[in-house]
Amino acid sequence: MRLLGTLYKFSRLLNRTLIRDFPKRSMACSRFEYVKSFEQDDSILPNVWIVIRIDGKKFHKFSKTHDFEKPNDENALNVMNAAATAVLQEFRDVVLAYGQSDEYSFVFRKETTAFKRRSAKLLTYVTSLFSTSYVMHWSKWMNLPLAYAPCFDGRVVLYPSEQNLKDYLSWRQADVHVNNLYNTAFWKLVLEKGLTNQEAEAKLRGTFSADKNELLFQEFGINYNNLPAMYRKGTILLRKRVIVGEKSRQAIVPLHEDLISSHFWKQHTEILGKYVPGTYDAPVPLPRLVELQLNEKQVSEEAEEPQNEARIS
Amino acid sequence: MRLLGTLYKFSRLLNRTLIRDFPKRSMACSRFEYVKSFEQDDSILPNVWIVIRIDGKKFHKFSKTHDFEKPNDENALNVMNAAATAVLQEFRDVVLAYGQSDEYSFVFRKETTAFKRRSAKLLTYVTSLFSTSYVMHWSKWMNLPLAYAPCFDGRVVLYPSEQNLKDYLSWRQADVHVNNLYNTAFWKLVLEKGLTNQEAEAKLRGTFSADKNELLFQEFGINYNNLPAMYRKGTILLRKRVIVGEKSRQAIVPLHEDLISSHFWKQHTEILGKYVPGTYDAPVPLPRLVELQLNEKQVSEEAEEPQNEARIS
Amino acid sequence: MRLLGTLYKFSRLLNRTLIRDFPKRSMACSRFEYVKSFEQDDSILPNVWIVIRIDGKKFHKFSKTHDFEKPNDENALNVMNAAATAVLQEFRDVVLAYGQSDEYSFVFRKETTAFKRRSAKLLTYVTSLFSTSYVMHWSKWMNLPLAYAPCFDGRVVLYPSEQNLKDYLSWRQADVHVNNLYNTAFWKLVLEKGLTNQEAEAKLRGTFSADKNELLFQEFGINYNNLPAMYRKGTILLRKRVIVGEKSRQAIVPLHEDLISSHFWKQHTEILGKYVPGTYDAPVPLPRLVELQLNEKQVSEEAEEPQNEARIS
Amino acid sequence: MRLLGTLYKFSRLLNRTLIRDFPKRSMACSRFEYVKSFEQDDSILPNVWIVIRIDGKKFHKFSKTHDFEKPNDENALNVMNAAATAVLQEFRDVVLAYGQSDEYSFVFRKETTAFKRRSAKLLTYVTSLFSTSYVMHWSKWMNLPLAYAPCFDGRVVLYPSEQNLKDYLSWRQADVHVNNLYNTAFWKLVLEKGLTNQEAEAKLRGTFSADKNELLFQEFGINYNNLPAMYRKGTILLRKRVIVGEKSRQAIVPLHEDLISSHFWKQHTEILGKYVPGTYDAPVPLPRLVELQLNEKQVSEEAEEPQNEARIS
Repeated sequence: MRLLGTLYKFSRLLNRTLIRDFPKRSMACSRFEYVKSFEQDDSILPNVWIVIRIDGKKFHKFSKTHDFEKPNDENALNVMNAAATAVLQEFRDVVLAYGQSDEYSFVFRKETTAFKRRSAKLLTYVTSLFSTSYVMHWSKWMNLPLAYAPCFDGRVVLYPSEQNLKDYLSWRQADVHVNNLYNTAFWKLVLEKGLTNQEAEAKLRGTFSADKNELLFQEFGINYNNLPAMYRKGTILLRKRVIVGEKSRQAIVPLHEDLISSHFWKQHTEILGKYVPGTYDAPVPLPRLVELQLNEKQVSEEAEEPQNEARIS
Repeated sequence: MRLLGTLYKFSRLLNRTLIRDFPKRSMACSRFEYVKSFEQDDSILPNVWIVIRIDGKKFHKFSKTHDFEKPNDENALNVMNAAATAVLQEFRDVVLAYGQSDEYSFVFRKETTAFKRRSAKLLTYVTSLFSTSYVMHWSKWMNLPLAYAPCFDGRVVLYPSEQNLKDYLSWRQADVHVNNLYNTAFWKLVLEKGLTNQEAEAKLRGTFSADKNELLFQEFGINYNNLPAMYRKGTILLRKRVIVGEKSRQAIVPLHEDLISSHFWKQHTEILGKYVPGTYDAPVPLPRLVELQLNEKQVSEEAEEPQNEARIS
Repeated sequence: MRLLGTLYKFSRLLNRTLIRDFPKRSMACSRFEYVKSFEQDDSILPNVWIVIRIDGKKFHKFSKTHDFEKPNDENALNVMNAAATAVLQEFRDVVLAYGQSDEYSFVFRKETTAFKRRSAKLLTYVTSLFSTSYVMHWSKWMNLPLAYAPCFDGRVVLYPSEQNLKDYLSWRQADVHVNNLYNTAFWKLVLEKGLTNQEAEAKLRGTFSADKNELLFQEFGINYNNLPAMYRKGTILLRKRVIVGEKSRQAIVPLHEDLISSHFWKQHTEILGKYVPGTYDAPVPLPRLVELQLNEKQVSEEAEEPQNEARIS
Repeated sequence: MRLLGTLYKFSRLLNRTLIRDFPKRSMACSRFEYVKSFEQDDSILPNVWIVIRIDGKKFHKFSKTHDFEKPNDENALNVMNAAATAVLQEFRDVVLAYGQSDEYSFVFRKETTAFKRRSAKLLTYVTSLFSTSYVMHWSKWMNLPLAYAPCFDGRVVLYPSEQNLKDYLSWRQADVHVNNLYNTAFWKLVLEKGLTNQEAEAKLRGTFSADKNELLFQEFGINYNNLPAMYRKGTILLRKRVIVGEKSRQAIVPLHEDLISSHFWKQHTEILGKYVPGTYDAPVPLPRLVELQLNEKQVSEEAEEPQNEARIS
């Protein structure tokens, strides 16, 4: 070890000499640089699924200010979807995103080494890119200009097993079901029957799912199950191969499927498996979210980039 | 304790009854809701200064794409300043922000209870609002449209003592000095003398501050100390009373002072003290950053709001 | 919610009244009690294996002071084993312990809720009980009295998957193999051939396993594989049913098997499975470590206690 | 940087060569060694006071089993004090310890770099050494042998300011006052008046401090303030110079003073200051705890060791 020790000392010496080349820099900083030692390591445990969930801050007010349609504003939801799509385009280790209402969850594969698994880095990059993309994509979907800067909070949650991860996503999808059924009935009562908010709330209090289904059908002629799947199931974003004419290209595609069932996981084995994108079972016409991507030149280029690109900061 | 125990059981019972009012909701969620228990507490130690520092992601490329002037683009810096101002307007427990280049640091007073001091909440709200505000303010300062969504990372660093906090800010200000002196000389050599990047680098290698000052003076007739203070010192944002005619209003004001010296801290005692905004020693004309605020109706209203408003999520 | 709210306020009121019964207590503490809020939550992520590894502090000196036999002191190792056995007797959620040299690893089943999975609690209870048990058991195995209080450090490491856990234990067992083969050869050279430490080190430098095996065989007539398994494999402690005459009783039993092979995990399915202790394939005579347990009256009683006893602090 | 790079590669090469000297070792471990990466950094924020508080596990039962005198067993408290003294002798960066009942708090100076401020290391070393020392010192103070291995839990709490630290210690001392006054009255009623536990509890319920003082005086002729200070104030351990004849030696000395008052902190300025031990204002006769130290040869030697000895693991 002695030789190595000598070498080490030698490199230290050299190093010091090199630093002397920038004397002002090192002098200016040295007195204060100790404050760097207050930064604490926040690396995430290896081999767990990393979920980052983003929530709109005070979106109740935000949706009012921007006249969102009630109970669901298709375009506003698509701004969310477009922002989330931008995140998946940038971070290839995100294997699935799930969005509903003003929230979006991003799932990093459990082997990811993106940003050395540093929690704050992962959290803020995703939150920041989602936030700026939301603003950038706004005018593609909405007629009103943004009245003020929206804001999202984010959190990191870790799931050790596949079952935990599936249950997490199921929890969010069960949540959209309960809320959307309630909201659909509530806003029908308010907007079409002229009830006040309080009256509508009172009428729905204590009712079961079956009751609300029945109410929608009897009083409004609505079969809840025929409402748009995006409202009932939320949006799942996956990286898929899209067949366009004779070419195949990668894109982030929106699905509105039931992810609580095992069928979903058998259909999209790449999520828990080797992350080789499956083929998109594309509806006709293509969702605009996908079409916009295919029209972007940069997407086709990015599709050629290696899988691990996102890991390089 | 027995009576309380009974009451407690009674409320649990009531609670359960109330929950039965929303049977579907609780049924739908119960199987999966356990996943919430994977969220971990991240409350920050009380009585320490909370610094959140934001950095632009790949801003070297971003500044090229958007043709930033070298070595400093006044307008691009002001987009940063405007975005940071939005953060201070929203989070009143931020008592100071300091920005330079593509980074900004926000200092929460050490007693803050905003968001229960939850680290991820504080970090992501600041990062997200900064990010969206950056995009929203862009066109007020820049002629080119944004080519793509910018992205910022953020981190939380804690400082127990006033000295640590001052040293942190001094570290950042020393950094801007060293970098800006170098960059100023470098770009002069490249842009005015026609040196290649490599030649300019070679010429500056090993030089002291004095050498670079001399070079700027001898070869370009520039007295470094006469360059704009914003480039040499960065930007300090403080909440101040601005006297407008006979009225006084609160605004976030930019300073480009030397915060390494003790003079700065004696001048602005509110930072470490009781947080009662001091009076702005306003230059004529007012910086546009301040003017824009005074023209916003909402600012004057916000000025009336109680100090602790930001703490309510 | 209003009724509940009233009830809550009522209980608060009652609570306050009850507190008034101990006015001095609340008065005395209230001013200072805020310091409790500086204690931070350290609950461990659910559904991961919790490993606590203990290491002797400066045991090189400790083993010299107490004249441990070289390269292995059977009795000293058994003090370690006895101390670890005490930990398994107390914490029934420890499903396996593995010891070698001056270290011991304790594996809590991944569903454990012992001490609400609080990291410091689990860590210090295990470390403290191991430490005191080491001192208490010392004289049962050693002739010399303890010269001074030994000290152990401990750490918590989390493993999300079964494979990770097995690899952790394999890592420790591979370590004992490498070290013990080296130490066996080293001490033979020193103690029987009269080499100095430096000479022995020089002779072994750069040798492969096969070389050391050969050296032991050629120069000392030793077949390494015939040396006691405890020295070569370390000690695995499991909770097993021990058949004693016509009765069956639970005890902590020492195994010296190869846990790197899959055979081990097929043999002892309870470790990763349902934690129903298997039957001990007892050697004749019984290891003294087991015999001592069977002679303790308290063991037979404890065997009747429910599985989750350890979870109650 | 190129030269350094070459050197670095060279050292890597050398390193690899050296590793080849122990081929089996590296081979055996390599497959499994990745599990080390699951160990997470737990360094404590710089510049905060580190308090480690130890509590006896189930000491109610432990004190019954070992017939502790009620309400205070002087000898049992001294076993605690002796164990804590051993911790201060070993870790010189502990500047104060405070004990009462079955708990002890150890205060590391805020600049300590012992064990690189790694939380688990500091926590377990203190807990383990306290635990083993408790067992080792037991027989010096108690007549009964230990019936079983005692166990202590420990926690780490951080305090940023001197005031926080003083308030923490005051909190613990206020606690002993409230509990001891109650316990003194309670046990007098039970042991001397023959009340049952329930009757004594009922009699004391709702009483103020003044009431209990009065009760002790009226019914038992006891002036509470004349009871031994160790029972009323707990035990503060400090490192002091003890004058023995013409020599002065360092020792850990027990004080039973009021640390809530500012007087205490003015008297013992070394705690918050430069850590130069003050002189012990020794009572006659010396407390046995001190006498035992002076008789130990090793103490005098240790007193010569450098201040930072504890930092070397």
